Amino acid sequence: MSRPTIGVGMLGYAFMGRAHTNGLRKLAYMTWPPPADVRLVAIGGRNREAVTEAAQRFGFERAETDWRAIVDDPEIQLFDNLGPNSLHSEPTIAAAKAGKHVICEKPLARNADEAHALWQAVAGTGVKHLCAFNYRFVPAVRLARQMIEAGELGEIHHFRGSYLQDWLVDPSAPPSWRTDAAQAGSGALGDLGTHVIDQARYLVGEISEVTGRLRTFVNARGDQPVTVDDAFEATVGFEGGAIGTIEASRFAAGRKNALTWEINGSRGSLAFNLERLNELQISTGTSGFTRRLVTEADDPFWSFWWPDGHVIGWEHTFVHELHHVLDAIVNDRPIGPYGATFEDGYRASEVADAIVRSDASGRREQIIYRG
Amino acid sequence: MSRPTIGVGMLGYAFMGRAHTNGLRKLAYMTWPPPADVRLVAIGGRNREAVTEAAQRFGFERAETDWRAIVDDPEIQLFDNLGPNSLHSEPTIAAAKAGKHVICEKPLARNADEAHALWQAVAGTGVKHLCAFNYRFVPAVRLARQMIEAGELGEIHHFRGSYLQDWLVDPSAPPSWRTDAAQAGSGALGDLGTHVIDQARYLVGEISEVTGRLRTFVNARGDQPVTVDDAFEATVGFEGGAIGTIEASRFAAGRKNALTWEINGSRGSLAFNLERLNELQISTGTSGFTRRLVTEADDPFWSFWWPDGHVIGWEHTFVHELHHVLDAIVNDRPIGPYGATFEDGYRASEVADAIVRSDASGRREQIIYRG
Amino acid sequence: MSRPTIGVGMLGYAFMGRAHTNGLRKLAYMTWPPPADVRLVAIGGRNREAVTEAAQRFGFERAETDWRAIVDDPEIQLFDNLGPNSLHSEPTIAAAKAGKHVICEKPLARNADEAHALWQAVAGTGVKHLCAFNYRFVPAVRLARQMIEAGELGEIHHFRGSYLQDWLVDPSAPPSWRTDAAQAGSGALGDLGTHVIDQARYLVGEISEVTGRLRTFVNARGDQPVTVDDAFEATVGFEGGAIGTIEASRFAAGRKNALTWEINGSRGSLAFNLERLNELQISTGTSGFTRRLVTEADDPFWSFWWPDGHVIGWEHTFVHELHHVLDAIVNDRPIGPYGATFEDGYRASEVADAIVRSDASGRREQIIYRG
Amino acid sequence: MSRPTIGVGMLGYAFMGRAHTNGLRKLAYMTWPPPADVRLVAIGGRNREAVTEAAQRFGFERAETDWRAIVDDPEIQLFDNLGPNSLHSEPTIAAAKAGKHVICEKPLARNADEAHALWQAVAGTGVKHLCAFNYRFVPAVRLARQMIEAGELGEIHHFRGSYLQDWLVDPSAPPSWRTDAAQAGSGALGDLGTHVIDQARYLVGEISEVTGRLRTFVNARGDQPVTVDDAFEATVGFEGGAIGTIEASRFAAGRKNALTWEINGSRGSLAFNLERLNELQISTGTSGFTRRLVTEADDPFWSFWWPDGHVIGWEHTFVHELHHVLDAIVNDRPIGPYGATFEDGYRASEVADAIVRSDASGRREQIIYRG
Repeated sequence: MSRPTIGVGMLGYAFMGRAHTNGLRKLAYMTWPPPADVRLVAIGGRNREAVTEAAQRFGFERAETDWRAIVDDPEIQLFDNLGPNSLHSEPTIAAAKAGKHVICEKPLARNADEAHALWQAVAGTGVKHLCAFNYRFVPAVRLARQMIEAGELGEIHHFRGSYLQDWLVDPSAPPSWRTDAAQAGSGALGDLGTHVIDQARYLVGEISEVTGRLRTFVNARGDQPVTVDDAFEATVGFEGGAIGTIEASRFAAGRKNALTWEINGSRGSLAFNLERLNELQISTGTSGFTRRLVTEADDPFWSFWWPDGHVIGWEHTFVHELHHVLDAIVNDRPIGPYGATFEDGYRASEVADAIVRSDASGRREQIIYRG
Repeated sequence: MSRPTIGVGMLGYAFMGRAHTNGLRKLAYMTWPPPADVRLVAIGGRNREAVTEAAQRFGFERAETDWRAIVDDPEIQLFDNLGPNSLHSEPTIAAAKAGKHVICEKPLARNADEAHALWQAVAGTGVKHLCAFNYRFVPAVRLARQMIEAGELGEIHHFRGSYLQDWLVDPSAPPSWRTDAAQAGSGALGDLGTHVIDQARYLVGEISEVTGRLRTFVNARGDQPVTVDDAFEATVGFEGGAIGTIEASRFAAGRKNALTWEINGSRGSLAFNLERLNELQISTGTSGFTRRLVTEADDPFWSFWWPDGHVIGWEHTFVHELHHVLDAIVNDRPIGPYGATFEDGYRASEVADAIVRSDASGRREQIIYRG
Repeated sequence: MSRPTIGVGMLGYAFMGRAHTNGLRKLAYMTWPPPADVRLVAIGGRNREAVTEAAQRFGFERAETDWRAIVDDPEIQLFDNLGPNSLHSEPTIAAAKAGKHVICEKPLARNADEAHALWQAVAGTGVKHLCAFNYRFVPAVRLARQMIEAGELGEIHHFRGSYLQDWLVDPSAPPSWRTDAAQAGSGALGDLGTHVIDQARYLVGEISEVTGRLRTFVNARGDQPVTVDDAFEATVGFEGGAIGTIEASRFAAGRKNALTWEINGSRGSLAFNLERLNELQISTGTSGFTRRLVTEADDPFWSFWWPDGHVIGWEHTFVHELHHVLDAIVNDRPIGPYGATFEDGYRASEVADAIVRSDASGRREQIIYRG
Repeated sequence: MSRPTIGVGMLGYAFMGRAHTNGLRKLAYMTWPPPADVRLVAIGGRNREAVTEAAQRFGFERAETDWRAIVDDPEIQLFDNLGPNSLHSEPTIAAAKAGKHVICEKPLARNADEAHALWQAVAGTGVKHLCAFNYRFVPAVRLARQMIEAGELGEIHHFRGSYLQDWLVDPSAPPSWRTDAAQAGSGALGDLGTHVIDQARYLVGEISEVTGRLRTFVNARGDQPVTVDDAFEATVGFEGGAIGTIEASRFAAGRKNALTWEINGSRGSLAFNLERLNELQISTGTSGFTRRLVTEADDPFWSFWWPDGHVIGWEHTFVHELHHVLDAIVNDRPIGPYGATFEDGYRASEVADAIVRSDASGRREQIIYRG
């Protein structure tokens, strides 16, 4: 076979490490023929024992405890950074400067300045870069994008998006790097809110103004202070004239992974809920909403999968996303607009920062995107 | 029988006139024994022919084209004002000063100043006064209130409420008094938004701050300018510490009468949708949501109705509300906290005005309620 | 006004008495102008005190404890029989022979023989006769019928209908006439199953064969034996070639009033649930199901009601049904096919009897309808 | 590592071949540590080119066009038969006689006699045998089983199960082996109905009697006659006293992969829909139904997957099922009762045959299971 081989180095072996590795391994046989053969060269993390076991489990050739050993490896063409937010910039820039294509988990950085610097540094190298807003790769979301691009919703009036979880509503839930501003930058805003912001930008267009309110309901966990937000609420205005709301919370009892949005346009509406990710609710004109099970061969990505009606799961967004990256590398295609570039990652951070500023200033904040 | 008789005078005979008359007629036999016998004395409106037919249809003894003939009538003990917002203050104050108990449709007035003056003038007379936020009288909403009062949700963290309709998304929909600021005061904000604000106050507590954004998507209908908002978005903060969003739109294609809210507390969550008004979604702790059909004899109001499982409709909120008013009159009970008083009507207007101010100022607005 | 007046005599004042009276009183002002003015002449029942109070409550001119005093009254043109099944035949026949139009609750009789005799006796008199299968008058059901008549579903392949309640699953629930074969004829089959059978016939067409299985799960309640079925299951074949299932149960924990059906045709499908009676689920071709809120002015009956999106309740089926009867009387229009005649009542009993026969014989039973 | 290695030989490389291979490959790293390392030794099929490509794609060491080369291979310890129903018996028996553990797709055979012979022949060899009723391995279904085993539903009264698809409602859909009785045995009954039968047996218990009706709506496709059923309807009685309905159709427009059931017991109810396979609807007592998202670590199988709220897909049933088989082999544990043995496969066929017999005889058929 004439398929190229892409060597992958990964930083991070826990939740996201499993999800990305699974995506890379599955695309080898579910998307046939795949754009490239994937060679799992090295996986990195701080705990030698754990990363060694992860390498065995996931099939990487070796484990590393120093990320430099990964970004320096000439056998690696794609560097996939899944570390905590504070570890996004330095390794990713180093990898790009070493000529490797790069993937970085969201949020791209702890704030817009850091994200902008990361984007600029990487963009200057000419490598492909993707910020892993994987929910762009839910088939229902891609279908929504295509319907909106085709004008099926007409002029967009409203976007209302939420990302609701409940794992911190229990005051005895333990602290983690996700509740520490030094490592995470922010809380629900960066972790969940940037997904909603990215969906808003992907589906409706650029956000031009926000107001926002952050809140921390439980100020300490164990013996550690909680230095990030537990939840936030925002109003948003779009360049195209639409208005809406964006929010996220880790305190929404009974909601597990409820990234939901509804979009109302002059010709119809769409609604989505990640807990039922195989479905898109479609209202044509002012008729009621049709529950469409997005499992047909003519839907985005569906050729990879099963006969109509056989639903997929959360993890498959990574298969689609990583396929997109490999295809972009091998065939020199752009990551955007269907994949999120580092510029998209930066812009989401710019919106998130404006929400933080508005919380402090009490003012509606205009958003100025840097080039 | 020893039941007292209450003479009713009504101003307005269209949509709301039908709804209130139906409520008054039905409670006579559905709530048994009713607090009072109702005598439909007079109904008023500007079009003599139409109001005369309405009197025949609904069983009023006479029709009037001058509201003064109603508020002056000594046979009337209860004045029910269903006119356009610009006709709320003067007749209602006159009726109260004539010693009649008063009901006034929502929004109580075109702005907070007018609402405050109306409340103060009426409160000084000592009559009973109810602002017809009828959705307090949906059984599911009353049940929600009772659960929250009993502490079943713990500390409240979030309220997200919307009232979505789509009857103006068609740009050729005609103008009406509802799209004219002089008659209506505001658009979606006063008509729909005040319902959401009242639900928020009724269920979660006093709102202390807002940000807001209003928008008019279609600037003229027929040959008339649209001088009110088509939609608005707001963030809200409550005195008790919860944060949330409130919005309303007449441009949400596919949504017909979707007053929806979700409340998340430290011990559970509740969710409601007026399009399925017989149901309350209840999450106890972090379990999933239970769809409870609110039709059991131990639910609020249900003794008036049918065996468990036999659902009621939108109109029945008025039966409950008017029963509440008659009971308050006959047994000298307070309208609040389960019914909305004119103070509640005023407070909703204060929140609405703050949303308008925030739209203009670009600032988070604190809300100061006048005594 | 030139509207005729129809004097009504009613037998039964409990659950169904309330529902029918409410229908008669409401249509006077909700359906405008109504086909006739209704005069509530007499209401009958065995308990003098109770029926006297009911007459006061509902506005009947007098109360009677002997049904003959009603059927003999020349002021009465419409006799509405809501008594237990064992009291359907004799009073109804007497009323018809006295020239009164007749309504009789479902099931029309305790078995097909009795129903056939009742139908024949009444049909011979020339009066209008309606068997109160009120769910034909749910707007969503009428819309379904009209869509099927217009060919929008193509050839019908399947009907699956259930009527599930749970009020007997508690073994300590008390006995009533509904659990006594002498008074009720059958249990879930006659009470709930005939509704499903009537929906099947109304929407899909004549049933030609069945198999069936009845079951009584709790054999005694209090000190009385349960002599009727608690539940049944059946397969059905239609003359037009469709096949399906029909069942009913009073033991379906968590289901309160769940009359549900789904119909699959060669061009699309429809689904309905009485617990959400304002909605019809519509699949056009093999697309997913659209939840249509049946509240638009061009839907059946909706001109009687409120603006789009303002839902109605269970009780309104009786308003529609009784309006239909008055219109048929005043304008000499047929009760069928949209209303159920006594022939429809008889045919439902013929199907129910065949289910009982099949339970005993272990055979698929053909159904032969008598003329 | 001391994990044993299990060599796998697979017959069939299309839809089910992909699904099983994916399961085998994923369990290697998702279920950690896996019970065994899997070696994909050989895959077989009739088309040399296609099976050779499949071997490359899925990672099998070699491709075979004669199944005997697989069942004779001493490197293979597990034979996974995914061929058409007519190819189930001979290769599976040969493999078992060669000492290999065996998996066979459902339905186990084209009829009960063939299934019985297959079961008996294999059981005599002492190898592990699983009939691939994979829906036993949906987490929601396993949870339902465990709740019922624990008595949470009390005595079971009803089971109503359907499997609805719509891929044949289009009369121009082409013929396949699935519409040919010689290869498939039956149509919707064997393909879909046996899944429902297995769910009924797994959750409620043994079926003792049935009535049934089969139908073929389109008698020819292309130039081939359709010799199997397009749909069937059945009533069922269980040994434990419950009654219910079972049906399947390939003509249910708008239903894609809707395996649904509801179970009503004396203490509560459960409901499931494969199109929303991450959810179980639970009614405790007669309360309403709670939508539980089955993604928590204490749910069956969930330790293999992602944090709470991150849903899985249809394909993951095979991961669970194949893990179960490997665990049974390595640790000498039984396949049943959580996995379906060949005896379960045979018993499902016995029920299916009784439905066919009842269709022909017009009689309720008792089911006698052979030992």
